[in-house]
Amino acid sequence: MSLYKNQWLEKEKVFRDPVHNYIHVTHQVILDLINSREMQRLRRVKQLGGSSFTFHGAEHSRFSHSLGVYENARLFCDIFKRKYPADKLGENGWQDSERLVTLCAALLHDVGHGAYSHTFEKIFSTDHEKFTVEIITSETTEVNQILRKISLDFPEKVASVITKDYPNKQVVQMISSQIDADRMDYLLRDAYYTGTQYGFFDLTRINRVIRPYKNGIAFLAQGMHAVEDYIVSRYQMYMQIYFHPTSRAMEVLLDHLLKRAKDLYPSQKEYFNRSSPRLVPFLKGDFTLKDYLLLDDGVLNTYFGEWTEHQDAILCDLAEKFRNRKPLKSVVVHDAQLPLIEKMQLLVEKVGYNPAYYTAENSSWDLPYDFYRPEEKRTRTQIEIMLEDGSMKELSTLSPLVRAITGESVGDRRFYFPKEMLEMNQQNGLFEDVYKEFSKHIHNGELID
Amino acid sequence: MSLYKNQWLEKEKVFRDPVHNYIHVTHQVILDLINSREMQRLRRVKQLGGSSFTFHGAEHSRFSHSLGVYENARLFCDIFKRKYPADKLGENGWQDSERLVTLCAALLHDVGHGAYSHTFEKIFSTDHEKFTVEIITSETTEVNQILRKISLDFPEKVASVITKDYPNKQVVQMISSQIDADRMDYLLRDAYYTGTQYGFFDLTRINRVIRPYKNGIAFLAQGMHAVEDYIVSRYQMYMQIYFHPTSRAMEVLLDHLLKRAKDLYPSQKEYFNRSSPRLVPFLKGDFTLKDYLLLDDGVLNTYFGEWTEHQDAILCDLAEKFRNRKPLKSVVVHDAQLPLIEKMQLLVEKVGYNPAYYTAENSSWDLPYDFYRPEEKRTRTQIEIMLEDGSMKELSTLSPLVRAITGESVGDRRFYFPKEMLEMNQQNGLFEDVYKEFSKHIHNGELID
Amino acid sequence: MSLYKNQWLEKEKVFRDPVHNYIHVTHQVILDLINSREMQRLRRVKQLGGSSFTFHGAEHSRFSHSLGVYENARLFCDIFKRKYPADKLGENGWQDSERLVTLCAALLHDVGHGAYSHTFEKIFSTDHEKFTVEIITSETTEVNQILRKISLDFPEKVASVITKDYPNKQVVQMISSQIDADRMDYLLRDAYYTGTQYGFFDLTRINRVIRPYKNGIAFLAQGMHAVEDYIVSRYQMYMQIYFHPTSRAMEVLLDHLLKRAKDLYPSQKEYFNRSSPRLVPFLKGDFTLKDYLLLDDGVLNTYFGEWTEHQDAILCDLAEKFRNRKPLKSVVVHDAQLPLIEKMQLLVEKVGYNPAYYTAENSSWDLPYDFYRPEEKRTRTQIEIMLEDGSMKELSTLSPLVRAITGESVGDRRFYFPKEMLEMNQQNGLFEDVYKEFSKHIHNGELID
Amino acid sequence: MSLYKNQWLEKEKVFRDPVHNYIHVTHQVILDLINSREMQRLRRVKQLGGSSFTFHGAEHSRFSHSLGVYENARLFCDIFKRKYPADKLGENGWQDSERLVTLCAALLHDVGHGAYSHTFEKIFSTDHEKFTVEIITSETTEVNQILRKISLDFPEKVASVITKDYPNKQVVQMISSQIDADRMDYLLRDAYYTGTQYGFFDLTRINRVIRPYKNGIAFLAQGMHAVEDYIVSRYQMYMQIYFHPTSRAMEVLLDHLLKRAKDLYPSQKEYFNRSSPRLVPFLKGDFTLKDYLLLDDGVLNTYFGEWTEHQDAILCDLAEKFRNRKPLKSVVVHDAQLPLIEKMQLLVEKVGYNPAYYTAENSSWDLPYDFYRPEEKRTRTQIEIMLEDGSMKELSTLSPLVRAITGESVGDRRFYFPKEMLEMNQQNGLFEDVYKEFSKHIHNGELID
Repeated sequence: MSLYKNQWLEKEKVFRDPVHNYIHVTHQVILDLINSREMQRLRRVKQLGGSSFTFHGAEHSRFSHSLGVYENARLFCDIFKRKYPADKLGENGWQDSERLVTLCAALLHDVGHGAYSHTFEKIFSTDHEKFTVEIITSETTEVNQILRKISLDFPEKVASVITKDYPNKQVVQMISSQIDADRMDYLLRDAYYTGTQYGFFDLTRINRVIRPYKNGIAFLAQGMHAVEDYIVSRYQMYMQIYFHPTSRAMEVLLDHLLKRAKDLYPSQKEYFNRSSPRLVPFLKGDFTLKDYLLLDDGVLNTYFGEWTEHQDAILCDLAEKFRNRKPLKSVVVHDAQLPLIEKMQLLVEKVGYNPAYYTAENSSWDLPYDFYRPEEKRTRTQIEIMLEDGSMKELSTLSPLVRAITGESVGDRRFYFPKEMLEMNQQNGLFEDVYKEFSKHIHNGELID
Repeated sequence: MSLYKNQWLEKEKVFRDPVHNYIHVTHQVILDLINSREMQRLRRVKQLGGSSFTFHGAEHSRFSHSLGVYENARLFCDIFKRKYPADKLGENGWQDSERLVTLCAALLHDVGHGAYSHTFEKIFSTDHEKFTVEIITSETTEVNQILRKISLDFPEKVASVITKDYPNKQVVQMISSQIDADRMDYLLRDAYYTGTQYGFFDLTRINRVIRPYKNGIAFLAQGMHAVEDYIVSRYQMYMQIYFHPTSRAMEVLLDHLLKRAKDLYPSQKEYFNRSSPRLVPFLKGDFTLKDYLLLDDGVLNTYFGEWTEHQDAILCDLAEKFRNRKPLKSVVVHDAQLPLIEKMQLLVEKVGYNPAYYTAENSSWDLPYDFYRPEEKRTRTQIEIMLEDGSMKELSTLSPLVRAITGESVGDRRFYFPKEMLEMNQQNGLFEDVYKEFSKHIHNGELID
Repeated sequence: MSLYKNQWLEKEKVFRDPVHNYIHVTHQVILDLINSREMQRLRRVKQLGGSSFTFHGAEHSRFSHSLGVYENARLFCDIFKRKYPADKLGENGWQDSERLVTLCAALLHDVGHGAYSHTFEKIFSTDHEKFTVEIITSETTEVNQILRKISLDFPEKVASVITKDYPNKQVVQMISSQIDADRMDYLLRDAYYTGTQYGFFDLTRINRVIRPYKNGIAFLAQGMHAVEDYIVSRYQMYMQIYFHPTSRAMEVLLDHLLKRAKDLYPSQKEYFNRSSPRLVPFLKGDFTLKDYLLLDDGVLNTYFGEWTEHQDAILCDLAEKFRNRKPLKSVVVHDAQLPLIEKMQLLVEKVGYNPAYYTAENSSWDLPYDFYRPEEKRTRTQIEIMLEDGSMKELSTLSPLVRAITGESVGDRRFYFPKEMLEMNQQNGLFEDVYKEFSKHIHNGELID
Repeated sequence: MSLYKNQWLEKEKVFRDPVHNYIHVTHQVILDLINSREMQRLRRVKQLGGSSFTFHGAEHSRFSHSLGVYENARLFCDIFKRKYPADKLGENGWQDSERLVTLCAALLHDVGHGAYSHTFEKIFSTDHEKFTVEIITSETTEVNQILRKISLDFPEKVASVITKDYPNKQVVQMISSQIDADRMDYLLRDAYYTGTQYGFFDLTRINRVIRPYKNGIAFLAQGMHAVEDYIVSRYQMYMQIYFHPTSRAMEVLLDHLLKRAKDLYPSQKEYFNRSSPRLVPFLKGDFTLKDYLLLDDGVLNTYFGEWTEHQDAILCDLAEKFRNRKPLKSVVVHDAQLPLIEKMQLLVEKVGYNPAYYTAENSSWDLPYDFYRPEEKRTRTQIEIMLEDGSMKELSTLSPLVRAITGESVGDRRFYFPKEMLEMNQQNGLFEDVYKEFSKHIHNGELID
């Protein structure tokens, strides 16, 4: 029996939001979750780490995004309840008893994200999705205590939506599929905050045509072009924002900085214990959820600030470069030129840079859309378009645009190096020949033989 | 002689911006200033400290705002040069040799802002404007070294614009007056990021009618209503955003938290030296510019995080409340009810809260507009509307709306207290009578007898 | 008993709308009314006659606006039903049985508008509100036949909302008061289509605070500033758009053109019968509803086109000037200079223009807001702000901005004349002295002695 | 020698515009052209004939669009002059002496459009492009007289841009190519007025990367994705707005209505002479430019209004249906089902409709993009992307999205018929079997065997 006597708030609460205008909170449990320590932590974690260095307006947090995902899910539930009510689960319509688990999963889906997640995970072998599940299911968190007020098994149910094991695929797909509440928020939000328009798509129209069916979520045929437009928006955001060479340059710097700290740690334990105590469990490779929750962007940046005064020239310089936005330069590398990278690294080394910390090969690829391929190890759901008679067609069979980018990864591979390598005024000094040799291999932004 | 042989960039650089679409950088010195350590620090300082707890979307930094102020000033210079070129200074038009000092002052006008400036300054007696001047004129900063490349006295010139001592009042008013590049950016930007529209005004129209004259900046009569609308927008932003009771509640918490740390410091020096080293100079009251520049939002938040584990119940609780957004409640207090506050504080004390740290009287007042009053100690320039024949009229003589809010401060005084004082479910327990007595004095959101 | 067995449509219909995103139609009767001949006629009548000559983007029709007013009313009904349901009429809440009459009145409130209504009414003594009532109640119209399917007295009920005689003042005020569904659409719509922003206000916030009470519509105190902002927007739209001197110049031209036709008609009946048959009943002063419904912007413009070939120099010239946008010029006339007008007209006459057709005195005044004054002949409802305890305060007692423009008309009086009077290059010829004398009386856009 | 002593206006004039914010007019000749009779006529011709019946907000005129095309061209010239000035023609940069011919051609490119052009041209064998050229070059027009003030051969030069014969291909491509000032305005404008977002693309970014080169216009490689996005927007607007089945249904009605009038004319000359005098030259097939310029939307609608009282049942009914928006219904027809159409027409005839006037086969196809194919009879220029080293790549070689829609027409073929054929409640009466047979052939919105 629920400890929330009245799950629905007497008076709906709203939060003003630039993307959705208002976030509407109608349940006490949602309000409590928003106010929980673990959710409030997300205010201190930027949604777009590296990209905010390229698009200065994009300083929004994962907290804002989480509210947006919740609001999308809430709206879908309202639409489903009004237009497609079902008497019981397993029918073609929506059973509104699924609302609460849906809303909680939507709100919490990113609660395990940490500071600069992408890079942090790579260096320290953490996994934000596992942390999300742990925050939901571990009795040590406020989030868990709130969820348990609904029922003792409620945390597990919410977690199973995150891991896609929840039996009702309508709920799972609303939170996580190729067109879900999560993506529909971040495309719009990142577009709004970067000040670009590529991520805008017609959410209002999609809300007109989204519907539940027995095995998941589908879209009515008359809205096919709005769905197509969403896929194209997603493609454009990856091409133009998420894969921006300068943003990746900042991530490369961060990667190298954290790696340097990790490399130095065994020999400088005392220094790191004193200057960067909250990071030590990760430098040691022995951390708990509690350790993880103590980190945020500000904590890392504070430590990077300390490191700029360290005597290790590389740690100090990389920290300085990251804090003060001094990105590496890059060029595209095609397969045929891959062997050249080693030579370029040698040239970088010749002028005095340690290539392990001052060069990188960075590949960013995304699969904008794919249909269901049972043979793949990580299968995806496909986007289903429902015809008038109720039958389904997979999206790419209807749209030539989507077909064009189906099943093919887009992105590029780049070689990063210090920008000094290309500065003309350096080319008359000591290393003149090295710089000239380096420049010879770069043409039209690509590495050439 | 300038060390910048070519002040103008060969190819204009742009930064994508949600408010101005693009920030256009045309001078090498501006690009260098943007890339300086002191400017990059502003990325780590939020523009709206307390307000981002009420309007979660408003997570933008002083860095973004500074670029916006620069862009406004750049556009004004372009307009002035094109439409009102003057052969020499002191004429009714614009001498474009003033451009560079204007742009630098616009970009740097907030460079001395620190973490949670408003509250921080109050507790630690710092002054962001003095720091701005020092950052510009002290030879220890990158900003100063860049400005000195233009000429040795250039930093002083830029600083004198900030202090309003620069002889050309056109330049001073563009950066700092009742309608300046600064306000014109923050109203639009804060409106955009909060997701409200109150701050929007017709910047394009204002750009059509703004013009230099001998003693400053004026606006052509046909644009009077656009200027009027700007004044009203400013009024609305103060009423609805900047003075929002919940935002002020968070500032009250922060104020009390920093005060508690300051009070504890003398007896707990070692603790603060270890847990919050960068703050110690301020706790001691003995700090330098270098100390100041080491602080940012992240550093303070990191220390607050440490403090949540301190054994002092008040420091710990206030840090927790601030980090996890647990604002105090408040009511409006009219003059007649001022004496009641003491009684209310006693009631708060009775249930166990130290009123010095858990209550506050907070007054927020703004003078939306005023005309020039030579008798006032802090005189302001007024907004001049230029008629067809070149004569001037002061704005409020033309607009009934502006007249209505001229010379009168708007805002309110509030009494803040723990929200538990009003929670009904507490009113049956131990302190039932105290809570009831407290509630009796609150009606329609106001303190009553 | 209703002939509509199912008043609610099985599937909601939507119309894409730039202002409200979608217009949602949920009742068969609304769909039928939209499709009626009388409503479709509004597609051929511009919302802003004269203003579209100044703001070329503002080419929207009364049809679009009518859908918008309907949508506002529909949304209010939804909000009222959800948040303030009442068991029976006369209570503080909303009885949803009032929905249909509200929606129909909202949709039809402008159905009696004709081509260039404002000017047309003045010349031909028609009254669009009377026509609205007649279209609703006369059995000859499709609108009436549709409404009668609901019940035989339904047309009268809808008409009584238009005439403000309907007993439920909630319904009346929703359609017609100082803050109603009508104004809330046209401010937003006219702002959108002119491309200005003055008319934008925070409709979403107003929707959060609007509520029914026993005697009408009120707004919760926390939304006071949004209501204040709406009043200011309204003031700005009048000052900047609706009273724009050039728009009024076009209306003056139209007024004089129609007057000339009316003056010529008695002597040229055959010509008008042949060239402008649909206008003849009005030229004769003997017209029916059917005659009225045959007119629209296109019909009048077609006749004006014919008139450009007429031998009467004035009719021909005015028709040409109106069709091809050759507005008169104007200056502001203060009371003291009123006697001068006669002299100016004589000067206009001296250079060969008939002042009755080529000059005009045009006064445009609006009362942006007023409270209830029982002594006035045409009383208005005032805007009520509801405090926490349910008591009411009249808006201007809370807002200094609104107080500033309460009860005082704003606008100006202008004297219109041919623009040739001011053209410098004419001032050396035959009438040099006349032009000089004329110009002498104009300074800073005002008439002077 | 020019009669315009000062081609540049002393003070720039602006027109407020919802799409471009302001239209900036800097030349006297442009101002005079805008004020000409032929340009003002475009205020009375809607940009989107049929579509405004589906998207009620889209009531904008060709006048607004023409100003927008001009503004785009003006901005391109400004950008070219500032960033790529050339000393003489035929170089890789821009010779600003080409500005005036470019601006005039941009403004006038649609001046030959008439009422409901698309359909009108089909029925009456007119050609708006030929009329555009004639308006520019015929000495009878105000447009021509204005252009001749620049120089006697100036009208011919402007006309040759329209016909693509002008030697400087930079100018031609700016006005007319796969990415030109015309398309860049109408996509944005039609998106704004319909209230959809599909047509929005990143014009600001395109303005950053557009540049002239020796043989035309190219785009810098870093802006490739913005150009790609423009192509996709164009595709989406065709799919969702321009090819909307209901809009085409209204065009089918209009087509049949005009055809009926043309068919009736020989036997009813007197009636048409009296009721629709301005249309008679076209009904007769013997018309002049002057006849053409007397028509506009309002004139045709006025005549259609007259026709609703004609005794010919078909003319009367079609006029009624068109004026009051009673569109035909439609289904998609694939090649295999083409033979079925005849059968369906017979069924329509059986219930009493003349299939020649009440059914139609309507095919709408667009080629969203293509590269240069010298073998085609109507060659197109392709979109050139300029790499860092100045070499060019054709767009589709860089973009998988564009490649997907290159060279392949998109659209569909539809069969139109009276909506009564599908109304269920009719299926019990006299023609029950016919209706049932008809319905049997329609499934999922398509014609089936």
